[in-house]
Amino acid sequence: MTSDTVPVTTDDAFPAPVWSVDPRTGEHRARVGVESSPADIDRAVRAAAAAAAALADRPRRAALLRAAADHLERDAAQVVAVADAESALGVPRLTGELARTAYQFRAFAEIVDDGAFLDVVIDHADSALGRPDLRRANTPLGVVAVFAAGNFPLAFSVPGGDTASALAAGCPVVVKAHPGHPETGALCARLLRAAAVSVGLPEDVLAVVHGFEAGAALVRHPLTAAVGFTGSVRGGRALHDVAAARPRPIPFHGELGSLNPVVVTPAAAATMADEIGAGLAASFTLGGGQFCVKPGLVLVPAGDPGGVAETPGGARSKPGALEEAVVEAAGRVAATPLLDARMRAAFLAGVRERTALPGVAELLAAGEEPTAGAPLAVRPGVLAVPAALLAEDGPHDLLLEECFGPVTVLAHYRDQAELEAVLARLDGNLTATVRFAADENGEDAAGLLRRLIPLAGRIVVDGWPTGVAVAPAMHHGGPYPAATSVATSVGAGAIGRWLRPVSYQGVPQELLPPELRDGNPLGVPRRVDGRPEGLPGEAPG
Amino acid sequence: MTSDTVPVTTDDAFPAPVWSVDPRTGEHRARVGVESSPADIDRAVRAAAAAAAALADRPRRAALLRAAADHLERDAAQVVAVADAESALGVPRLTGELARTAYQFRAFAEIVDDGAFLDVVIDHADSALGRPDLRRANTPLGVVAVFAAGNFPLAFSVPGGDTASALAAGCPVVVKAHPGHPETGALCARLLRAAAVSVGLPEDVLAVVHGFEAGAALVRHPLTAAVGFTGSVRGGRALHDVAAARPRPIPFHGELGSLNPVVVTPAAAATMADEIGAGLAASFTLGGGQFCVKPGLVLVPAGDPGGVAETPGGARSKPGALEEAVVEAAGRVAATPLLDARMRAAFLAGVRERTALPGVAELLAAGEEPTAGAPLAVRPGVLAVPAALLAEDGPHDLLLEECFGPVTVLAHYRDQAELEAVLARLDGNLTATVRFAADENGEDAAGLLRRLIPLAGRIVVDGWPTGVAVAPAMHHGGPYPAATSVATSVGAGAIGRWLRPVSYQGVPQELLPPELRDGNPLGVPRRVDGRPEGLPGEAPG
Repeated sequence: MTSDTVPVTTDDAFPAPVWSVDPRTGEHRARVGVESSPADIDRAVRAAAAAAAALADRPRRAALLRAAADHLERDAAQVVAVADAESALGVPRLTGELARTAYQFRAFAEIVDDGAFLDVVIDHADSALGRPDLRRANTPLGVVAVFAAGNFPLAFSVPGGDTASALAAGCPVVVKAHPGHPETGALCARLLRAAAVSVGLPEDVLAVVHGFEAGAALVRHPLTAAVGFTGSVRGGRALHDVAAARPRPIPFHGELGSLNPVVVTPAAAATMADEIGAGLAASFTLGGGQFCVKPGLVLVPAGDPGGVAETPGGARSKPGALEEAVVEAAGRVAATPLLDARMRAAFLAGVRERTALPGVAELLAAGEEPTAGAPLAVRPGVLAVPAALLAEDGPHDLLLEECFGPVTVLAHYRDQAELEAVLARLDGNLTATVRFAADENGEDAAGLLRRLIPLAGRIVVDGWPTGVAVAPAMHHGGPYPAATSVATSVGAGAIGRWLRPVSYQGVPQELLPPELRDGNPLGVPRRVDGRPEGLPGEAPG
Repeated sequence: MTSDTVPVTTDDAFPAPVWSVDPRTGEHRARVGVESSPADIDRAVRAAAAAAAALADRPRRAALLRAAADHLERDAAQVVAVADAESALGVPRLTGELARTAYQFRAFAEIVDDGAFLDVVIDHADSALGRPDLRRANTPLGVVAVFAAGNFPLAFSVPGGDTASALAAGCPVVVKAHPGHPETGALCARLLRAAAVSVGLPEDVLAVVHGFEAGAALVRHPLTAAVGFTGSVRGGRALHDVAAARPRPIPFHGELGSLNPVVVTPAAAATMADEIGAGLAASFTLGGGQFCVKPGLVLVPAGDPGGVAETPGGARSKPGALEEAVVEAAGRVAATPLLDARMRAAFLAGVRERTALPGVAELLAAGEEPTAGAPLAVRPGVLAVPAALLAEDGPHDLLLEECFGPVTVLAHYRDQAELEAVLARLDGNLTATVRFAADENGEDAAGLLRRLIPLAGRIVVDGWPTGVAVAPAMHHGGPYPAATSVATSVGAGAIGRWLRPVSYQGVPQELLPPELRDGNPLGVPRRVDGRPEGLPGEAPG
């Protein structure tokens, strides 16, 4: 879901320039700088590593996170304008995204203040058990490399959740900016570095670098301790492999790609075809279909009224009510520019390639549709295919891969065996959704949900996967390629990706980190001798 | 720290036989079977995967863990006798290890009963925030491949912590037996499979396979979902790379190797040379020096009385008091057989290679020393080297690598700069130890501890790293190559390695896992609407 190059004019000399491009028109807006050289990467990572000691001051890094939110909000108009000019996501969406981004920083500031993320456990010496005094707390891993996402110029980019959670953990950050919005990245980096200085921290707690090769060099750098990535399967897998092949492998927390399957039961299709069709259209076209949780494959029953009559060979008779509803609703969605030229080209080619497969019907034709102010806008598409064609290896496997942009595929299953055959061929996903009829909650329904659990990190019933609520119970991740680790990249748990435990055995009080000393001078939540500290029944200490 | 082949006679046909060998004498005791073929691996993993559904029954898997402990204890005499015959670790040590192994199973049974490991979080729908009903719980990953460790035939092998924690998580297990104790592995697998049947579970929740190639095939199998490994850097790294290179990479939780550096401060050497020397001797020779936390490099101050006078070129004058003490105490340690022939050969070659380096003094000569009943026994060794020789790339880097067996290296530092130069060259470790003098607890001491934190998962002050207390505050892991992930392999936290979170959005009560339903019918610990359930101030629900 990312674009990894920007258009460059052929007469530009090395190093390659980094351009900000307007995706509505394809015009080069501004030259942001040049791609970072290996020497630039080395300087950025070493400077970040040198700033780590300053970040060990927990109150100060909480202050940094709050200052980051303040700085973003203070310059919100400029940030949103630049992000919109580079991403075409629109001012309302980006205003909301900036608010969410500032909220994330402040939420992590509270987490830093609270101290529960340190996961402090204290076991006093027990001579009966022959056990020494043992105290454990989490410690930051070191410099974190963050790869900005194309589809969230703020909330998953330079000032995004990976950055906020890593800084909260006490890790300096070097962000590889996304080529689709390099000016936004550079601007946000300036704001975050100014925020650091404003609270007495070195500005090098965060730096931004540009360029595809720079990204790989960043992952390879000996002082890089962990990676956070949001992007395509191809790019993410390549960087995952670089991280794993280092002399000292490092954690790679990547969110790579997700098809987000939806299953519509026969009863649901029979009773709610219009509602489901309209809801699906709204979900798969939201934000230009450029959300990682866009529903990309919808398993619908074959046969009227919910689906479409099929012959075994795939010849279609007439559309069903659900199909008509989704086509009607998606047909009314305004054409929209995509995030950048490469994303747009990949979308158009992806739709073309899928439509050309035998047995695939183009219910609503996606394609170019210039609109006022956006000559590069595209309109959404809806494809349909007999599920039987997806049940075995072959060219139709393409339909089981994410196609970034406003397109979805309806696959018609004739029976449970066909449904199961398709589910068995799916990779991991961020989400899996079921649309049940009103009274479907018996053993069949439970069995279907159990069947989906191995496929996804979030199971959605009678809703749509788009819209990722920021709540403690949210998990944003899933089996590969949805994610390369079991960690969540959204919510409070995201801080755990940048920490590791350290036990202290027999360390005198004076030499312990203050959070581990008797009396709990900093008042962090702790488990002492098997119990939460401060609860009745606590052992002395 | 593992041996990956067993001696085979040259006239044996394919498939290669698996022999149980007596490491005291080198005699082949029994033919345990043959190395597992790819078809064997496929069968074992598929059978394990098919047994996963039965393990979803939480009370039943708690019963399995308790039955496993019971079965081990019931046949303890036989298990200990076989393990001793194959490992030469001795009946007292193995009796204790069996008790610890049974304790681990029962501790994980309690964890399963308690349910906190599910990490249940419930956020009820909030229409003001536009938030749907969201509930999260951990779910098992699937089949776990476990690699048995050479040095713990029980506690880190077929019935060990990886197996117990994976079963506790609800994951079936296929163990690759260690070639040093294949009969113990096969015997324990029979006991665990019988334990499964005794509680109404399929025996295939656990299987054992044999052979080096079998191990790689096990990691590559599409249905293998995660790996637990304890062994050598070479073997572990190779399998780590196999896991990372799969079409769908899987988590690899490996404990590979650790030097376990010890720093003796000048004040400590000056005041406690005898005590430190004797303690060091006891620690590095414990269990034949075959513990993963054996202190393998001891940084001691140069110059009397604590260390040894050095010239810049490395010429030595006379031993210091600490050296004399360690040599004297280690010299009195009885010669001991090592775990297997390959381990023994690697130890002898490793000592030889290290002793041959320029500037290395052999204070106590390790080597072969046949004893009554153990013609293959070896005696411990102590080497010494000027720290300056370790400060730069070169052949002395060998001294910064783990040498499995009863040998340690004293490195004499003349000043803080030399000490720092050596610390800067160390890889990650399970432990890092400091020996302070009685009154050393000022800023210098705190700075030294801070310097060691990036190097290890456990910091030990004024003790020795051998002896891993099983306590909530214990972390057994560390930066690579001590571990390949940030997880602990000892203690309650080990279960988290085999779980991933799943969120349920808008799922009706009847379709939720019972642990997630309103009213908490199974009584597991949960956080509901931001608070621990059942505490005052809880929101209704």
